[in-house]
Amino acid sequence: METVETGGGGSDARPPFTSLVVIEFSSSASQQTISWVKDKITTPKSSGGADLIVQTMTTEKTVVLHVGASNESLLNAAELMEIKKLYKDGSLREVQRDDLDQFENSQDLDSFLTLAEKQCIVKHELDAIRAAETDRCVPGEMKLPLYKGQTLIPLLVDKGIIAQLFPLHDKRSLKTLSFDWYQSFFSAQPIDRIQQYFGGTVAMYFAFLGFYTMALIPPALIGVISEYGAPSELSTLFFCVFNLVWATIFLEVWKRNCATLTYKWGSIRTEHYEEARPQYYGELSRNRVTGRLEPKYPKWKRLLKFYGVSLPVVLLCLFGAFYIMLVYFWSEDLALAYHKEHDSTLSRVLLYMPTIVYAVLIFIMNAVYRTLAKLLNDWENHRLQSAYDNHLVVKLVLFDFTNCFICLFYIAFYLRDMKLLRSNMAALLITQQILGQIIESLVPYLMYKKRKISITKRSNEVKSTGNAVIDLKVTADVRKQAEIEGSRDPFVEVDVILELGKTKAPRGTLDDYLEMYLQFGYVFLFSAVFPTAALWALINNFTEIRTDAFKMCRTFQRPFAQPTTGIGAWQIAFELMSVVAVLTNCALLALTPQGLKYSEDIGEVNYVILFIIAEHIILFVKLTLAYIIPDEPQWVETALAQTAYNSKLAWRAQQMESARRRKAEKEELLIDTRDIKQE
Amino acid sequence: METVETGGGGSDARPPFTSLVVIEFSSSASQQTISWVKDKITTPKSSGGADLIVQTMTTEKTVVLHVGASNESLLNAAELMEIKKLYKDGSLREVQRDDLDQFENSQDLDSFLTLAEKQCIVKHELDAIRAAETDRCVPGEMKLPLYKGQTLIPLLVDKGIIAQLFPLHDKRSLKTLSFDWYQSFFSAQPIDRIQQYFGGTVAMYFAFLGFYTMALIPPALIGVISEYGAPSELSTLFFCVFNLVWATIFLEVWKRNCATLTYKWGSIRTEHYEEARPQYYGELSRNRVTGRLEPKYPKWKRLLKFYGVSLPVVLLCLFGAFYIMLVYFWSEDLALAYHKEHDSTLSRVLLYMPTIVYAVLIFIMNAVYRTLAKLLNDWENHRLQSAYDNHLVVKLVLFDFTNCFICLFYIAFYLRDMKLLRSNMAALLITQQILGQIIESLVPYLMYKKRKISITKRSNEVKSTGNAVIDLKVTADVRKQAEIEGSRDPFVEVDVILELGKTKAPRGTLDDYLEMYLQFGYVFLFSAVFPTAALWALINNFTEIRTDAFKMCRTFQRPFAQPTTGIGAWQIAFELMSVVAVLTNCALLALTPQGLKYSEDIGEVNYVILFIIAEHIILFVKLTLAYIIPDEPQWVETALAQTAYNSKLAWRAQQMESARRRKAEKEELLIDTRDIKQE
Repeated sequence: METVETGGGGSDARPPFTSLVVIEFSSSASQQTISWVKDKITTPKSSGGADLIVQTMTTEKTVVLHVGASNESLLNAAELMEIKKLYKDGSLREVQRDDLDQFENSQDLDSFLTLAEKQCIVKHELDAIRAAETDRCVPGEMKLPLYKGQTLIPLLVDKGIIAQLFPLHDKRSLKTLSFDWYQSFFSAQPIDRIQQYFGGTVAMYFAFLGFYTMALIPPALIGVISEYGAPSELSTLFFCVFNLVWATIFLEVWKRNCATLTYKWGSIRTEHYEEARPQYYGELSRNRVTGRLEPKYPKWKRLLKFYGVSLPVVLLCLFGAFYIMLVYFWSEDLALAYHKEHDSTLSRVLLYMPTIVYAVLIFIMNAVYRTLAKLLNDWENHRLQSAYDNHLVVKLVLFDFTNCFICLFYIAFYLRDMKLLRSNMAALLITQQILGQIIESLVPYLMYKKRKISITKRSNEVKSTGNAVIDLKVTADVRKQAEIEGSRDPFVEVDVILELGKTKAPRGTLDDYLEMYLQFGYVFLFSAVFPTAALWALINNFTEIRTDAFKMCRTFQRPFAQPTTGIGAWQIAFELMSVVAVLTNCALLALTPQGLKYSEDIGEVNYVILFIIAEHIILFVKLTLAYIIPDEPQWVETALAQTAYNSKLAWRAQQMESARRRKAEKEELLIDTRDIKQE
Repeated sequence: METVETGGGGSDARPPFTSLVVIEFSSSASQQTISWVKDKITTPKSSGGADLIVQTMTTEKTVVLHVGASNESLLNAAELMEIKKLYKDGSLREVQRDDLDQFENSQDLDSFLTLAEKQCIVKHELDAIRAAETDRCVPGEMKLPLYKGQTLIPLLVDKGIIAQLFPLHDKRSLKTLSFDWYQSFFSAQPIDRIQQYFGGTVAMYFAFLGFYTMALIPPALIGVISEYGAPSELSTLFFCVFNLVWATIFLEVWKRNCATLTYKWGSIRTEHYEEARPQYYGELSRNRVTGRLEPKYPKWKRLLKFYGVSLPVVLLCLFGAFYIMLVYFWSEDLALAYHKEHDSTLSRVLLYMPTIVYAVLIFIMNAVYRTLAKLLNDWENHRLQSAYDNHLVVKLVLFDFTNCFICLFYIAFYLRDMKLLRSNMAALLITQQILGQIIESLVPYLMYKKRKISITKRSNEVKSTGNAVIDLKVTADVRKQAEIEGSRDPFVEVDVILELGKTKAPRGTLDDYLEMYLQFGYVFLFSAVFPTAALWALINNFTEIRTDAFKMCRTFQRPFAQPTTGIGAWQIAFELMSVVAVLTNCALLALTPQGLKYSEDIGEVNYVILFIIAEHIILFVKLTLAYIIPDEPQWVETALAQTAYNSKLAWRAQQMESARRRKAEKEELLIDTRDIKQE
């Protein structure tokens, strides 16, 4: 084991090195590439580097870089990134070096920025390293040509030369956090501390999950009462209408809640301007808002890609999924007919074939579609991270919605077999939830445990063979922590199972939202047929919060903290689902046996029209509620208005000041010319 | 005739007096009140006045004040009101006295502000006069107690002590404007010049009217083709679907157009903060956004008033209108039955009675409802002018919609008599439009002409009797103009016919919008039955633009120019109408004889379900279109983002500057203490 220290001389006066971000190279990465990357990271910013500190660990298998940074460069970057901290007047303000002593906790520069913030800054600085004019290709990787201004680190990650890049956990904070979070079963989640540790996006997911779980309590109660208490047509009707209106109230109040959280976290969307994501490419040109140089990609090209390719491909996939389902039902009928004709072992085996083939097909389709969706979304080249995320969400939601519900729709409205629907719903909801919790939490945890044991054993072996460990700035503990956390699965946005050669199944908040979304669908789309769905969902979510929290803390690598403006496209996806729920519930209620009996009394057409009128009224009520309930609490609105007003005043004051200066200069000039004349 | 000059001494060096606003007292106003008002207007601002100039004209009947202002006070007020003018770099900026030479046309202070702007400023200053501590009641009107901070001029107008208050026309500008506007029949409207002369709200109405008229061309063409070209079920179907989708496209593109106009006019809504309207009352307290003192009325009180009183009252009125219609249909049946039984003169008279009674009832109800709506709206005490306007629009729209369309709905969907519907539609659309144009344009114009002739005769008589006319700052021409324009009807927002004792029927853009709104309803709600409606509407609007323009220029008093942020609640009203149109058209198509024949083939229930699916698809397409089409053109969005970004930068710079100053002060203090120590 060999250790090399690079970057800024090693004078003893400097604070001890803290490893913020770990970069693990793939075993195939050449020494040339590695030292080129190290060089880029440690070079001062003025020469196109990132001005960070690197410690190198070389084992027989891989090279690992521990990246740290001086407080000086961290503060500089924090100011540029406009990171907000608590000001002494209680407000959140963007960090300013000149004004540092007016911020809370600014006495101790080591702890002024949290570890998560420091890691974020280092990530941002790494992402900001761009190829210089002289970098024609990655040294040691002749097949990787570069162009000026290309982002380097994301490219190397993308090409697999950097195997992983992740921030280290803070064991002490994690311990206290996890204690309050998932070890105390009945207390509220410490959302603000989650935000500080894991960042806005993760905290927002857990806030949503918690809020949604609370919102499930009334439908669960009423559902159980209407199912077991006094089962009657009227109680089912009341339950359905309540559910539909409740869904809207829940989503609207959540919006307010979300505004409160993002305001508190200083990430509420206030301006039209957002920075481009690092993967965004295009010709360098001046941004018309900020006047800075930045890549620019023509909007019409993106629209053309979207409407010309992505949309048709997605629709084709949806149609494909629908068609495969039809074939499944048809071949099941066929197998049944064959079985009735020739009752044999073969026929009995054939009876199970359609379901098995269908299950396998769905699995493959899902994996292929996810890869495709990610590729298409990358290819569309969205400028903003939020736009990128939203487009990805819409693509995945459409497909998963089709896959999950089209079968139930077929049973409910084509076969009109309510019994089958009920049993299918129960099976899907309950088994999927239990399986889901096992697959997403238990399995990765067990696998990680296994890997951890082998690492510990190995490092013990290394020790026992007596190999000399050089006195490093990175302690043995941290090195071991990096190795252990490196063996965990990364927590990223999209789960692409079918990437060949990669065995890890990364998961992220996107999948967690998707799970909740489909559950929301099960609960609200078919309330009329399966009123206890809310109860099952409630029970599931109560443990889901804890297993998801456990997963975040124990199973996955720590994610980089990201600020959030809300749940983005999910808000719309949930709202649309609640609208679809009106249609399905009205149709289901119309198809109940008692309803159909009533339809004979008043005439079928009148009966249908009655339900259409009811549907329209419910939709109207939902729309009105959504319109009436303000999206932001009054105090957030006032606070935002105040900021906007102050900014406007500052802008006017600046203009006035410059006008005054111009006037003064002109007068001076006049005096000067007069002086000259007098002379 | 006696003339008195008040305010600022009459030195000859001052520019000639221009009459900007005319205040006409009622004949019952006491001399004491008048001189108190004059005093308030001319007193300097520091002493609670408006710092304006007044010229008094006393005739045997009334007292008329001509209010003017010095360029000095106009500019001061313009700066406070944040009036935007063209800056030399081509952008619009708020007027700043220190920076005046950087604005276009600022050399000549007399013409730097347009007449409309000056009139607006004077109006604003008059409205801003508030009762002082010592003003316990209006002198000469002991029954009018005052409280500190109450606005005076709106109160006096409200109580009828000031009979009218209006700005004078600019005869020369008006001539060239009217020439380009309504005298050249086929050219586009000079919207920007209308905005400069009549203000944003009026120009916005005409821009909307013009845009809407253009948008009627495709439906008119296709409607005529589908009616006379190749009348078939399919062509009607196509026409209906086209109409419904077209309505959404029209409304979305209009939104973009509207954003472009308001951006150009510098009145686009950018900040959350707006100033309270002068009629807003409440306890004086500090506004949390601006920190200024302003009346504050608790939000819950307003909500309580709205949901507790206004909403129930409005719903009751709607129900009343519906009930009266039912009684009308029922009594018509009764009369018919009676006529069949006893065919006599009495029975023939009775046959007409229901219609006559119904028409009279509608007229009375309408007048009562309008008065009620205005009273309720005033009573709700909205803080913002926009909120006030929107609530008034919603109240009137609901009632007029019910009155106009419930009868047609009844015929279409209860009686299902398409022939009756068609003839009713044609009668309503065509007669109402022709009658409308006559009532709203010709009648007021003729009445005004009559009054004008009598005034001219009278003033000639005055001249011929040889009464001495003192040499005034207000020329005889202007005095005559004021008298003539004073005899015109004022152009205000709401038309309240039933105000006892007042014979004038004021009209404003609100009524013009309402007319277009009902027309939009006729064209789009029943396209399936009456496809030529768009053509009739097109023809009407083509002349409507001209008659409305004529009305603005020749028949009504000049309105005060008001900035606008768009068409406000009308956008939503039109969008809702286009949604209702989907329902009605689908239902009408389903009720066609050919359709009903087809329903026998596929079964009635399937037939109804088919139409429901079609309806939902069209609604979905409309929703998607509305979501996809951006509300603002790209360049407006960029420009707004730029402003927001610059403001943010200015705000940061200001904070940094103050931080630097604080630091410098602290250091100075340190040096001082060191100095002291050394001493």
